Amino acid sequence: MIIGVPREIKDGEKRVAIALPGLDALVRAGHTVLIEQNAGVASGISDEDYSAHGARMVSADAAWGEAEMVVKVKEPLPEEYERLRSDLTLFTYLHLASSRELTEALLESGITALAYETVQTADGHLPLLEPMSQVAGKLATQVGVRCLESTWGGRGVLAGGVTGVAPAEIVIIGAGTVGSSAAQVAVGLGAQVTLLDINARRLRYMDEISKGRLITLFSNPYTVARCASYADLLIGAVLVPGASCPASCDGRDGARHEVGRGHR
Amino acid sequence: MIIGVPREIKDGEKRVAIALPGLDALVRAGHTVLIEQNAGVASGISDEDYSAHGARMVSADAAWGEAEMVVKVKEPLPEEYERLRSDLTLFTYLHLASSRELTEALLESGITALAYETVQTADGHLPLLEPMSQVAGKLATQVGVRCLESTWGGRGVLAGGVTGVAPAEIVIIGAGTVGSSAAQVAVGLGAQVTLLDINARRLRYMDEISKGRLITLFSNPYTVARCASYADLLIGAVLVPGASCPASCDGRDGARHEVGRGHR
Amino acid sequence: MIIGVPREIKDGEKRVAIALPGLDALVRAGHTVLIEQNAGVASGISDEDYSAHGARMVSADAAWGEAEMVVKVKEPLPEEYERLRSDLTLFTYLHLASSRELTEALLESGITALAYETVQTADGHLPLLEPMSQVAGKLATQVGVRCLESTWGGRGVLAGGVTGVAPAEIVIIGAGTVGSSAAQVAVGLGAQVTLLDINARRLRYMDEISKGRLITLFSNPYTVARCASYADLLIGAVLVPGASCPASCDGRDGARHEVGRGHR
Amino acid sequence: MIIGVPREIKDGEKRVAIALPGLDALVRAGHTVLIEQNAGVASGISDEDYSAHGARMVSADAAWGEAEMVVKVKEPLPEEYERLRSDLTLFTYLHLASSRELTEALLESGITALAYETVQTADGHLPLLEPMSQVAGKLATQVGVRCLESTWGGRGVLAGGVTGVAPAEIVIIGAGTVGSSAAQVAVGLGAQVTLLDINARRLRYMDEISKGRLITLFSNPYTVARCASYADLLIGAVLVPGASCPASCDGRDGARHEVGRGHR
Amino acid sequence: MIIGVPREIKDGEKRVAIALPGLDALVRAGHTVLIEQNAGVASGISDEDYSAHGARMVSADAAWGEAEMVVKVKEPLPEEYERLRSDLTLFTYLHLASSRELTEALLESGITALAYETVQTADGHLPLLEPMSQVAGKLATQVGVRCLESTWGGRGVLAGGVTGVAPAEIVIIGAGTVGSSAAQVAVGLGAQVTLLDINARRLRYMDEISKGRLITLFSNPYTVARCASYADLLIGAVLVPGASCPASCDGRDGARHEVGRGHR
Amino acid sequence: MIIGVPREIKDGEKRVAIALPGLDALVRAGHTVLIEQNAGVASGISDEDYSAHGARMVSADAAWGEAEMVVKVKEPLPEEYERLRSDLTLFTYLHLASSRELTEALLESGITALAYETVQTADGHLPLLEPMSQVAGKLATQVGVRCLESTWGGRGVLAGGVTGVAPAEIVIIGAGTVGSSAAQVAVGLGAQVTLLDINARRLRYMDEISKGRLITLFSNPYTVARCASYADLLIGAVLVPGASCPASCDGRDGARHEVGRGHR
Repeated sequence: MIIGVPREIKDGEKRVAIALPGLDALVRAGHTVLIEQNAGVASGISDEDYSAHGARMVSADAAWGEAEMVVKVKEPLPEEYERLRSDLTLFTYLHLASSRELTEALLESGITALAYETVQTADGHLPLLEPMSQVAGKLATQVGVRCLESTWGGRGVLAGGVTGVAPAEIVIIGAGTVGSSAAQVAVGLGAQVTLLDINARRLRYMDEISKGRLITLFSNPYTVARCASYADLLIGAVLVPGASCPASCDGRDGARHEVGRGHR
Repeated sequence: MIIGVPREIKDGEKRVAIALPGLDALVRAGHTVLIEQNAGVASGISDEDYSAHGARMVSADAAWGEAEMVVKVKEPLPEEYERLRSDLTLFTYLHLASSRELTEALLESGITALAYETVQTADGHLPLLEPMSQVAGKLATQVGVRCLESTWGGRGVLAGGVTGVAPAEIVIIGAGTVGSSAAQVAVGLGAQVTLLDINARRLRYMDEISKGRLITLFSNPYTVARCASYADLLIGAVLVPGASCPASCDGRDGARHEVGRGHR
Repeated sequence: MIIGVPREIKDGEKRVAIALPGLDALVRAGHTVLIEQNAGVASGISDEDYSAHGARMVSADAAWGEAEMVVKVKEPLPEEYERLRSDLTLFTYLHLASSRELTEALLESGITALAYETVQTADGHLPLLEPMSQVAGKLATQVGVRCLESTWGGRGVLAGGVTGVAPAEIVIIGAGTVGSSAAQVAVGLGAQVTLLDINARRLRYMDEISKGRLITLFSNPYTVARCASYADLLIGAVLVPGASCPASCDGRDGARHEVGRGHR
Repeated sequence: MIIGVPREIKDGEKRVAIALPGLDALVRAGHTVLIEQNAGVASGISDEDYSAHGARMVSADAAWGEAEMVVKVKEPLPEEYERLRSDLTLFTYLHLASSRELTEALLESGITALAYETVQTADGHLPLLEPMSQVAGKLATQVGVRCLESTWGGRGVLAGGVTGVAPAEIVIIGAGTVGSSAAQVAVGLGAQVTLLDINARRLRYMDEISKGRLITLFSNPYTVARCASYADLLIGAVLVPGASCPASCDGRDGARHEVGRGHR
Repeated sequence: MIIGVPREIKDGEKRVAIALPGLDALVRAGHTVLIEQNAGVASGISDEDYSAHGARMVSADAAWGEAEMVVKVKEPLPEEYERLRSDLTLFTYLHLASSRELTEALLESGITALAYETVQTADGHLPLLEPMSQVAGKLATQVGVRCLESTWGGRGVLAGGVTGVAPAEIVIIGAGTVGSSAAQVAVGLGAQVTLLDINARRLRYMDEISKGRLITLFSNPYTVARCASYADLLIGAVLVPGASCPASCDGRDGARHEVGRGHR
Repeated sequence: MIIGVPREIKDGEKRVAIALPGLDALVRAGHTVLIEQNAGVASGISDEDYSAHGARMVSADAAWGEAEMVVKVKEPLPEEYERLRSDLTLFTYLHLASSRELTEALLESGITALAYETVQTADGHLPLLEPMSQVAGKLATQVGVRCLESTWGGRGVLAGGVTGVAPAEIVIIGAGTVGSSAAQVAVGLGAQVTLLDINARRLRYMDEISKGRLITLFSNPYTVARCASYADLLIGAVLVPGASCPASCDGRDGARHEVGRGHR
């Protein structure tokens, strides 16, 4: 198959759809891989690296036009709509719920489009969403504790405290991939961590592997309100399936985060 | 040397001064060890066990009267005062600060008496007190969490909580041997544990080895009052050197414990 | 729906079927919740607390008589049988296997009764039994180590030992919710813990998350006999589905515990 | 004694010398504490809080002029030099090595000045510097991993990686209070951590309590160069005693940090 | 049923099919168990032990000839083919893929043969293979680190390093039972461990329970090549279902290991 | 200073006195370093490596003859005695207690000799012995568990056991550097570990950092005998200061190990 990898043109997007290990595997399997020049630069992969592993470095026109399948990171932007065509397969994050315009462009073009975020395993997992959710969860805590620093307008609370001074209280709503990743970082930083969910079995698993380092609570409006009243940092990590993901949530697909600062 | 081991006659005292390993070591070193009959029964050591390891089982009169040194657990009781004599060495817990009567009996008898609790190493440790303090600290938490059970008049708080339900808040004042032993059990039970002390280096060590499982706070009236206001269980573990140990604190030498129940 | 919550009248029962978070959720969902006066007192919830969160505090007659559904903790006692009626739904622990009398009373009344202990998820879990089993398992170890203290007639073995003195050997038969909860506390106390089960995968999971802190053994009469011969504390944590739970096992639904003391 | 606590006037300084627990202890000991109005606001302590715990809220003139001892956070700024006088004791961070001007102002005034950073215990510890060093070390890692995010110009390396993607390599030079605090956070974030020092015993302690979570290396130019060649983040945490601390290192007393980004 | 347990005659095989707990369970269930004399000696079980637990010690002829079912460890060897017969059930490891000769002997005899390695639970596990795989994985690392010792021709790298000297890099390909068991030992030894697999969920579980002690990487030719370039020890732990297991892999059923030494 | 590094000529000795980091530090400090050709080959350091870091590669004659100080690993062998001279300083492991011949050769030559094993810090540590002791302790367990494998004549006990099968019992006498390093590996392998010592404070530290993973016992003949009766592996790790170290204990300076196998 001829696979095209255009450079991402969305503002601030630094990822590229295929890195060297994936390229290597595709080439070994006999596929032709066309990568747009400079597509990997923002990710630290040079055109020379790609070439050395068997890619053909091409123009954007060729990466789209000569490919049977295009793999991307983000959904096509309006300036790319004209590249959509009925004999092309597109494999990328689409998040159609958030854009009627894109949905219609895809329909009109007759393209075969598969959204990463809808790929599901037999047992209900979302293998192309979970790594993004892990990134989102870990970053949520990293960004959140920054907001507690006084330099950034916070109350000057250090996530892990120091000897003789209590650590921050971090409350995380949702114990899925985003929430448990956020909790893992919060625990690692030395904070007091409370994790809420409506799924008792998920909470119990988190309980069992945390060795007492986090408190699990059943999530309901009453408990959320109570936790919000004392939290230094509150992280929302609930996936509302099908909910549109705001256009600006790059790297945080699959969950909307409200990172706020509580006051005891 | 001829060493005598009388049976403890204090009410409720089940310990015996020498167990089999110690007996074995003394006999190998060439000493004669006279043990009063039935001295070890309450500790699960039969006269046959002692005999088989080289002790001579004797009467109370012989254990005291034929010995050059008597080793005991508790201080002599009034009915034993007449056994004190100037050519005897007595090695036992004495806690003289709590009994003028005993002090005077010792002085009058001319006996050479060494108190376990005053034996000190070159670097300031109390090797014969610390094991008792470990026992005291661990039991303090075990007894304390029992007091939280509703069966025992408590509020029905389970030390470690369960999935979805918060654990108990246990506050321990003092991070010495008693306090850190109490904290070790409290952490193990899954409670939220706060440990207070005025010694920053001791707190830091506890911090470093606890891997985030306990909060350390500098102890002062303000912080103690604040912690007492929300603790489910408050354990006092402060050694006031020289302070008399109440007669009833068997097994808890070296620290006075106030085990109480807080209310948030 | 009109939901009634009578006060529990079983001797020693201090729980109440609905606490504030649940009440809050029901009220938000538009239900009317009638709670019997003083129903929450033994659990530390005052009538004022309930009222403030939207409950109507009523008499026992109203809590039963005006409700479309009654939620309780324990099964109806004989003095409550007359309150059962065909247009009422009852949701509570029932354990019918242990009472023909209750079973017949329910049948005669024509009531629709759902037993908490029979609610099952699609993947076979018992979500309303597991929290009780966690409580049971954790308490089993707490109660068991108390029985090892000499004050309570035990051999004076401290669960976690102290430096230089070996800890207690705790053997737990069954690695389900009760057994693994019991094991978690036993490990936390510093005991040597052996966990037996016939389910290899369950044992392996416990093995993987315990990081070497417990020994897993396949359960069979031979191994049980061998472990019983040296255990200081033996905890039975095997669920025999459908087996009647003795009337006195409040708070320990789902497993029968034999807490005994071994002798090596 | 009459103790004055002026408001800090250094740009960006949000700390105050005495918080409520300290105030409470001083007042209980019979001291008069004069706190400048608004001195605690940036730290979240209101004048009302201070008053309620026994302080007298006063003007800057009174906090300096009526006190027998002034306690501060930062060294006096030029506009405060005129407040120095021979019958006053000043207790604060001074870092005289970095300011001849301040040194001369102190000498001329005849004031008795004690620098926090020179207070030393009998066994060589610096109790007033170590908490600041813990803050510095923990923040160093928090700030450093931020620099790895692409939003902040970094290479887009997530400190802890995600499943299937390697974490960042964090190298920390110096295993004292700053370095070990930095390492604690780095380990908690899930990074691969290498800790260098010239003190074998300190490294061994870190080794023993880290349970394999960090690599210790003896520090020398060769090893530092080798680690720098692959580190994603390099944290310098070496205290050069007596070295001047740059004026801008607020909150990082005691160590100079070079937080840089490596390239493998 | 009459169950026969012949002594294993394969060179170097020291196992026996039934140990005392299994024997005890079979006898309690009413079965007759015929064990060949000396069958357990190499495993440390004497004929007296077996007899005392209800076995009848017999000749090889009887163990095969009088049994309705024979349980063994290894597949029948050519000298045992004549013992196969149509009214016998054979339960043992067979690994038929590696021996046409054995397959034909079984077919010709008309015996009913069940291979341990094909027994599968409803959810796809292989309960009779997994314990062997755990043994294989743990031994793979134990044997591998031995190969790193200079005494055995290695480069003199100590698995866990020592203070100030880096540990060995151990790379394990495959995170199934063999690989995760190998990883558990490698982590325990203090090595730096990298675990590769193509199954993201399995890697994530290993990630979650390892608390940062191992790096997980997605396995593909590119990553494997990169890891192999720096590994001190590379352990292959991939099960190719149905692949023949070389005759010499006793105790390592279920995975082929290539234990090699890398060079950075 | 001119520093000579001869190649080690003792049979089986693969170490070299100076590796690249040390060479680099000496050269930076202005010293001339003469290294005998091929001195580093058995340790994986080529002459080119040494040259590139500033060494002069020379003959054995020059490494000894032109140096002001010679640094070695092992003591001089008889064929090297003639190289000793009064204007040379020799810095190496000497273990004089085990060789009168060497002692006399040193005295006669008038050389200034410093033994690594006698270098002591102000607080009593042996910085040049401890790394060797760590190696010795870790290897003792690695070698010991190998002896438990049936391939090596052992009883076929796997150090860490597997799910459902108990691990090995490893008993370590002595909790100094050798013993605690041995214990660290034994715990890592998943064994049941008992550590004995006469130093209560050392045991307590090991207790505190082991989180319940090892049992500490006071060492005395009685306890040692009892442990030896059930240990699968017994490791002796007691330093008798001044005791001669058998000539064959390369790499295990500082402790004599008796690695044996127990039988329960």
